[in-house]
Amino acid sequence: MKAIVFDKELKLDNNYKKPVPKKGEALVKVKLAGICNTDYEITKGYMGYKGVLGHEFVGVVEDVNDEDKSLVGKRVVAEINYGCHDVNCEWCNKGLVRHCPNRHTIGIWKKDGCFAQYITLPTEVLFEVPENVSDEQVVFVEPLAAACEILEQLHIQPIQKVLVQGDGKLGLTTALTLNAFNYDVTLVGKHQNKLDIAKKQGVKTVLLDNLEIKPEWEIVVEATGSISGFETAMALTKPRGTLVLKSTVAGAKEFNLAPIVINEITVLGSRCGQFKPALKLLENNRIDFKPFISGVYSVDDAMEAFEKNKEKDTLKVLIKFD
Amino acid sequence: MKAIVFDKELKLDNNYKKPVPKKGEALVKVKLAGICNTDYEITKGYMGYKGVLGHEFVGVVEDVNDEDKSLVGKRVVAEINYGCHDVNCEWCNKGLVRHCPNRHTIGIWKKDGCFAQYITLPTEVLFEVPENVSDEQVVFVEPLAAACEILEQLHIQPIQKVLVQGDGKLGLTTALTLNAFNYDVTLVGKHQNKLDIAKKQGVKTVLLDNLEIKPEWEIVVEATGSISGFETAMALTKPRGTLVLKSTVAGAKEFNLAPIVINEITVLGSRCGQFKPALKLLENNRIDFKPFISGVYSVDDAMEAFEKNKEKDTLKVLIKFD
Repeated sequence: MKAIVFDKELKLDNNYKKPVPKKGEALVKVKLAGICNTDYEITKGYMGYKGVLGHEFVGVVEDVNDEDKSLVGKRVVAEINYGCHDVNCEWCNKGLVRHCPNRHTIGIWKKDGCFAQYITLPTEVLFEVPENVSDEQVVFVEPLAAACEILEQLHIQPIQKVLVQGDGKLGLTTALTLNAFNYDVTLVGKHQNKLDIAKKQGVKTVLLDNLEIKPEWEIVVEATGSISGFETAMALTKPRGTLVLKSTVAGAKEFNLAPIVINEITVLGSRCGQFKPALKLLENNRIDFKPFISGVYSVDDAMEAFEKNKEKDTLKVLIKFD
Repeated sequence: MKAIVFDKELKLDNNYKKPVPKKGEALVKVKLAGICNTDYEITKGYMGYKGVLGHEFVGVVEDVNDEDKSLVGKRVVAEINYGCHDVNCEWCNKGLVRHCPNRHTIGIWKKDGCFAQYITLPTEVLFEVPENVSDEQVVFVEPLAAACEILEQLHIQPIQKVLVQGDGKLGLTTALTLNAFNYDVTLVGKHQNKLDIAKKQGVKTVLLDNLEIKPEWEIVVEATGSISGFETAMALTKPRGTLVLKSTVAGAKEFNLAPIVINEITVLGSRCGQFKPALKLLENNRIDFKPFISGVYSVDDAMEAFEKNKEKDTLKVLIKFD
């Protein structure tokens, strides 16, 4: 089968071995997949991962290696982490499989990803897609779930003012999600064209140059991925407020965490989320992801898709596998 | 009066103007004061502060500029922040004067400190010292209150394992405080002689070289003040655990906050605390600060006291003003 594989270098392999579902697994025919920044980071060495890339997709179940075949023929998406389910695993027992130390994360850690014509997955991570949700919408369910994760971790009061920093995919998705939950959210970024995507769906927006840098925001979500973005986020968070760290920040710049102590800020790391609330947002048509789509490529043009993903104004690049 | 003043350089001023209490303020004759690392940081430029240094002390009220003179003659300590008490100040209204943007912080921000024979203070920040608590114990009430602050901010369950990192004053005080509240606390540091101070009072201790660096601790308190300490703290905190940032961390080293996101760690900044629980610990004789005292100097030898404070094995240096 065709698969986009990273092993020292990125390539399209036209003869990758089609996977065979183990007991309890489904064989899923991938229809459409999305390139995430994590995929790009992996091609630069992140996580030391080798194998089929990709973790955002929608597909159709072709077979299930189990007595219960009810999923066959169903259109599905898949949560990207699955745990060991050992009876002694505290994380699996708590339903926090995404923190299980022996977890698999598709396309990132110990498990081939979805940039292939087929993928096998434990049926427990599969979710049937509501009929009224198109492939082009539901392919965004994973980053949408990651945005919903904030609300699983943090109690935001409707009266509180939330600022989301960064008008890339992550920031836009987060702002639109919090807005869909009716929170008082403002998105700040450097690109008017990107801010406008959120603005058209009801989010308040402001250009960074026009934002007063004062510690006035009860909740700030950092989604720029840069050290300077993190520093600005610290300067914007109100004393005793919460800075949600949604993007990984690393660098060699001079760094000062004193504002966290002086203002007693809570920095809350936030990663992947559960699909159920994200699917509900899509079913209820609360967010339109069409404006995110910067290009749709056939799997045969996958290398071109990755090049497109690197361009400055690109948001989401999709790859078709059928 | 005699006062230890910082204005570009540190000096003992034998003719500093004795302060006069404003309406609602008390005139306090300082008996004993302690040098804090913050004082040392100020002499290197921290906060851009100029004036009388010092914020840890015990004294006796000589006069009160108010009808109510009941505090006169009383031995007192003082919380170091006081707010504006404007009717519209959300922080003062919430009782969080230590976050009031117009606050004064004695010896640190907009208010002369306690390294002088006299200090004036609003009566609202004064606390009478219980009779059974000696000057040499109660002079530690401010850092002790800062340690208690962790329990004001964070719900620690008795079943949870707490690790305190750093065997300086801050780490020792924090470990002894959590131990006094009966928590399951382990102190890790590099100096057996310092660890032993906590060990003798019932805290579990371990040398850093003997500590396995695994993300197994539900709560880690970072009190080393170094970037490498913060990085170790991130590596020790369990997924979804809390890293309490008690010391300000700054530097130019390469820096990677990814573990916070991947393990969804909460980093909780923690600063000054309220005196009431700290005084109760002292009244109940739950912590012995005698082993902290590395030297007691007369105000006339103040410069020598500051030199002693810089020495590697020094914990607390006290200065006598009467």
